[in-house]
Amino acid sequence: MDQGNTAFILLAAALVLLMTPGLAFFYGGLVKAKSVISMMMLSFGAMGLIGVLWVLYGFSIAFPATSAGTIQSPWAIDPSEFGLESLLTTPEGAAYPPLAFVAFQATFAIITVALISGAIADRAKFGAWMIFAAVWATIVYFPVASWVFNFGLDADTGAFSYGGWITYGLQTWIGVGAIDFAGGTAVHINAGAAALALALVLGKRVGFQKGITVPHNPPFVLLGAGLLWFGWFGFNAGSELAADNTAAIAFVNTIAAPAAALLAWLVVEKIRDGKPTSVGAASGAVAGLVAITPACAALNPIWAILLGIIAGAVCCLAVDLKFKLGFDDSLDVVGVHLVGGLIGTLYIGFFANNTGLFVGGDGRQLLAQAIAAFAVLVYSFVLAFAIGWVIEKTMGFRVKNEDEIAGIDTVVHGEEGYVLTDVKA
Amino acid sequence: MDQGNTAFILLAAALVLLMTPGLAFFYGGLVKAKSVISMMMLSFGAMGLIGVLWVLYGFSIAFPATSAGTIQSPWAIDPSEFGLESLLTTPEGAAYPPLAFVAFQATFAIITVALISGAIADRAKFGAWMIFAAVWATIVYFPVASWVFNFGLDADTGAFSYGGWITYGLQTWIGVGAIDFAGGTAVHINAGAAALALALVLGKRVGFQKGITVPHNPPFVLLGAGLLWFGWFGFNAGSELAADNTAAIAFVNTIAAPAAALLAWLVVEKIRDGKPTSVGAASGAVAGLVAITPACAALNPIWAILLGIIAGAVCCLAVDLKFKLGFDDSLDVVGVHLVGGLIGTLYIGFFANNTGLFVGGDGRQLLAQAIAAFAVLVYSFVLAFAIGWVIEKTMGFRVKNEDEIAGIDTVVHGEEGYVLTDVKA
Amino acid sequence: MDQGNTAFILLAAALVLLMTPGLAFFYGGLVKAKSVISMMMLSFGAMGLIGVLWVLYGFSIAFPATSAGTIQSPWAIDPSEFGLESLLTTPEGAAYPPLAFVAFQATFAIITVALISGAIADRAKFGAWMIFAAVWATIVYFPVASWVFNFGLDADTGAFSYGGWITYGLQTWIGVGAIDFAGGTAVHINAGAAALALALVLGKRVGFQKGITVPHNPPFVLLGAGLLWFGWFGFNAGSELAADNTAAIAFVNTIAAPAAALLAWLVVEKIRDGKPTSVGAASGAVAGLVAITPACAALNPIWAILLGIIAGAVCCLAVDLKFKLGFDDSLDVVGVHLVGGLIGTLYIGFFANNTGLFVGGDGRQLLAQAIAAFAVLVYSFVLAFAIGWVIEKTMGFRVKNEDEIAGIDTVVHGEEGYVLTDVKA
Repeated sequence: MDQGNTAFILLAAALVLLMTPGLAFFYGGLVKAKSVISMMMLSFGAMGLIGVLWVLYGFSIAFPATSAGTIQSPWAIDPSEFGLESLLTTPEGAAYPPLAFVAFQATFAIITVALISGAIADRAKFGAWMIFAAVWATIVYFPVASWVFNFGLDADTGAFSYGGWITYGLQTWIGVGAIDFAGGTAVHINAGAAALALALVLGKRVGFQKGITVPHNPPFVLLGAGLLWFGWFGFNAGSELAADNTAAIAFVNTIAAPAAALLAWLVVEKIRDGKPTSVGAASGAVAGLVAITPACAALNPIWAILLGIIAGAVCCLAVDLKFKLGFDDSLDVVGVHLVGGLIGTLYIGFFANNTGLFVGGDGRQLLAQAIAAFAVLVYSFVLAFAIGWVIEKTMGFRVKNEDEIAGIDTVVHGEEGYVLTDVKA
Repeated sequence: MDQGNTAFILLAAALVLLMTPGLAFFYGGLVKAKSVISMMMLSFGAMGLIGVLWVLYGFSIAFPATSAGTIQSPWAIDPSEFGLESLLTTPEGAAYPPLAFVAFQATFAIITVALISGAIADRAKFGAWMIFAAVWATIVYFPVASWVFNFGLDADTGAFSYGGWITYGLQTWIGVGAIDFAGGTAVHINAGAAALALALVLGKRVGFQKGITVPHNPPFVLLGAGLLWFGWFGFNAGSELAADNTAAIAFVNTIAAPAAALLAWLVVEKIRDGKPTSVGAASGAVAGLVAITPACAALNPIWAILLGIIAGAVCCLAVDLKFKLGFDDSLDVVGVHLVGGLIGTLYIGFFANNTGLFVGGDGRQLLAQAIAAFAVLVYSFVLAFAIGWVIEKTMGFRVKNEDEIAGIDTVVHGEEGYVLTDVKA
Repeated sequence: MDQGNTAFILLAAALVLLMTPGLAFFYGGLVKAKSVISMMMLSFGAMGLIGVLWVLYGFSIAFPATSAGTIQSPWAIDPSEFGLESLLTTPEGAAYPPLAFVAFQATFAIITVALISGAIADRAKFGAWMIFAAVWATIVYFPVASWVFNFGLDADTGAFSYGGWITYGLQTWIGVGAIDFAGGTAVHINAGAAALALALVLGKRVGFQKGITVPHNPPFVLLGAGLLWFGWFGFNAGSELAADNTAAIAFVNTIAAPAAALLAWLVVEKIRDGKPTSVGAASGAVAGLVAITPACAALNPIWAILLGIIAGAVCCLAVDLKFKLGFDDSLDVVGVHLVGGLIGTLYIGFFANNTGLFVGGDGRQLLAQAIAAFAVLVYSFVLAFAIGWVIEKTMGFRVKNEDEIAGIDTVVHGEEGYVLTDVKA
């Protein structure tokens, strides 16, 4: 066991956990002042709920013990890991304590669920969201994590080994596994597809049209973006599970791509609207972070910059789709996480070191990437739609229109975001 | 010396230092807009003051050099450590540089003092608080840290060894030492007892009654909770002083317990009041973090969840005590830190691996926990009351009622929390 | 390669990156509500721009490959490092991956540029700022970083070696190199001198006089200070590039000096104005952090406290200079970063272990410090003035007076900092 790597994993996990409060501020700043609390509570609720489910049984679905060289069933469960009981000691020869990996991956599960909530701003019942989150995590996130992140404790040696069908199985079947270093599919496409489904289930906000949302607190959006970027170093570099050269590449790309995407988004805004916005800078950085997530260890920094430019510019254009297509993905989870995740995942097929189509590959990497992206997208969308639909038809997912207009914070939480009555204004 | 462990300790110290600004936002968001600056300054003042005192002489009281196998006097001082002069090099064979430990523990001293300030919101003079903080740290926190955290540089070998009476001495006297991994007694019970004392000394705010405090900025409360949770990984896992399996257990429990407590607090609110609140989510997470602090290395994650549920539910009920008993612990330092610290400390007596009463122990662990909790509670309460009382009777601790009503920020600091006159509102 | 050190460097880089969002809040809270977005965008724009330039060619100017024992040309460029192409693998025998160092130093480049922006609050065009930032980084920051931080990849061994003229060359020429552990000259004097130049180029804000700026959001200023302090541990201790005893000394001094400076600033305010302010506490902490930056590994903690006291008190007095001398360095980059950087850099000449004038030295250390400070100050001031002047005379650097009065946020970014129309106020 290397204590440097263990320190790296644990601290990376702390950084990733901070991303969810960061997301709460990113999303919270984007909504109206009268729904800031509701918006943030969708993230904080996920921290509580998924944190508990992960320990109880989530890890046992996402990372069941496996045998080296075996492709894992997509729906395997390892009851010996319930409550993490079989993971409390570090096996001889393991590179790090199993619980360090458990902690690191817990934070991924939490933020993936929280990401979805941006689609249902201003109008979702807190209780309905919590039920959705529990079910979606259980039947979508936990298994999909096992398809992609593909580690399992080897039942024989106690070390971690591989087995997810997307990254390992495809290798057997088409000769090359999909590359998804830190979760372009499992996190961003997954959450983005679920967000699209929920936006359709809940329907449009009252008065939905372009310009409906004037972000009430751009500084909060920037704070959120700053915390997300900070935490994303843990997300991407930490996914190497070792403080080594690959982690350093992932780290540098996690500077380069969002930096380029931030600039690209601002340039598109400047050209299109005449003014670069702070919300655009924050969104651009996040779009670049999303796109580099699967690709951060597979690209040289110069190609990470190109990816960032593409992601920043395309996502900036993509966020207007909802007005044209008429779905109310309120805070652009589709435009940023689904589109950005697709861009990053497919870009690997073209530019990945050695295997990309444009750098010596034969197209199989691109095929693997497309299969991975498509599989996760469809799986998540269909199940998220079904779960959301059942909730809407039974207990109701959406608050009444008059409550939405009055302000969801007071109706659902009995709180107001700001009580500034004793401030001169 | 292991550089992985040293990196872990130093970065953990950075995380814990961030907890005090986090606390400033947690507390600052809970008060009225007209006292947000005062509230935050009680924390930032502590950062300045305790940071300096720690270097000058605090560490020499808390961690005097000792001899292996000796129980340290509760009031030992090591003048060779004044100004940290004897600690500037790493002794041969030491696991990490002494100054890394000094830095880590400095951040504990700072936040413990800052925690107390929640009891005296809206009405404490800044100068009086600073004097209280200096004296309380000197005669309460520094010695109590030596009772509990019980490390000292061995005067012979230069390595750290044990000697605090609570964790080491009790082992000799009753056969089992109290378990307090990261400061349930030294930090939370200690601060909570002092908070109760100060609430009594300063008396109730003008107009004190249930509902007096409508938190002026719940997003700040959530920001504070997020930063606290993030920093708490350094606090708990870092207390292992090594990036190893025990640190990983502590880390996972620092996800599990606050997650469960957050949910439990919201459930109690939902049942009792009909609405789960964001302030409740933040408070629940903190209550869970407090409770798991002493216990994070002594419990399996499944028991950490149970502890979180208990802490979240009980603390949610406990914060109303002040209205029934008539003391104005304004921001619930007693209800969260004293009660939560007691729950966590005593829970160990029942559920600690191997020694807990319900898992094979003979009750001596519970006795040790009770002694530790009681000793720190009484010591801190009595001295905090005395220090506060002397300050109140001499220079005065509390501002005039008219200043409290006018707003303490302008009176004491000549500042306003928000100047939004040029914003449309 | 040591993975503990690599983890330390990478995580330190993450901490330093967070400093720029922290700075955005520090600066953003200090301005009027109607320019908070503009102010924050000057920092976030730098994150995007300098992040990209660093990868493209910045590192190749700042850290060209060198030969051990050679003094590097002040304007050397290493084209093999364009796009970081020659740095993608870890050479045999290297202590850490080159890209870890690249990432760490990227964050220094970003924050140094962002620091300058405090001088031009309320009145700078975003596009003009971005052009200034690109040019200043290219012809000032990148070369000056090579003078000071003086690492280069040894072209023969692949290990990092020394060669900057300020820290290495002076050693050959006057027998002792300047000490600047983490950037008192390259970062703070550099940015402070450029800030002074830009303040002169852009001229005073409309209505400039003492008291013009009532900080609109002191909690944001405290948040910024908290994030800066947190990140500064990465900045200072991380500059050791190893988790060792020296890093621990730097870390403890990064608690001691800002803590003392915070207190000193408040004491001066209390004596002079009768009231200690939260903005003063934040500014004091930053002044102490600035001053300890070059000195953090060269002083015992007790001398770090003295340095903090001096920096806190002197900077508190220095920030009023602009009203007497009539330049509008709006947010006191000169008073805090230039003055604080000079204090810290020169203080080393008096008190550095072994070589300081007052502790056994012969004055050569002081001479080296003075040369270093003077060289960077003059170089940066002259070029920043020239770049700014050209921009002002061509495209214009400053917005129209009526736009400044109306509020730069809506004019330049089409956004408002706070839209609280649905909040009771």
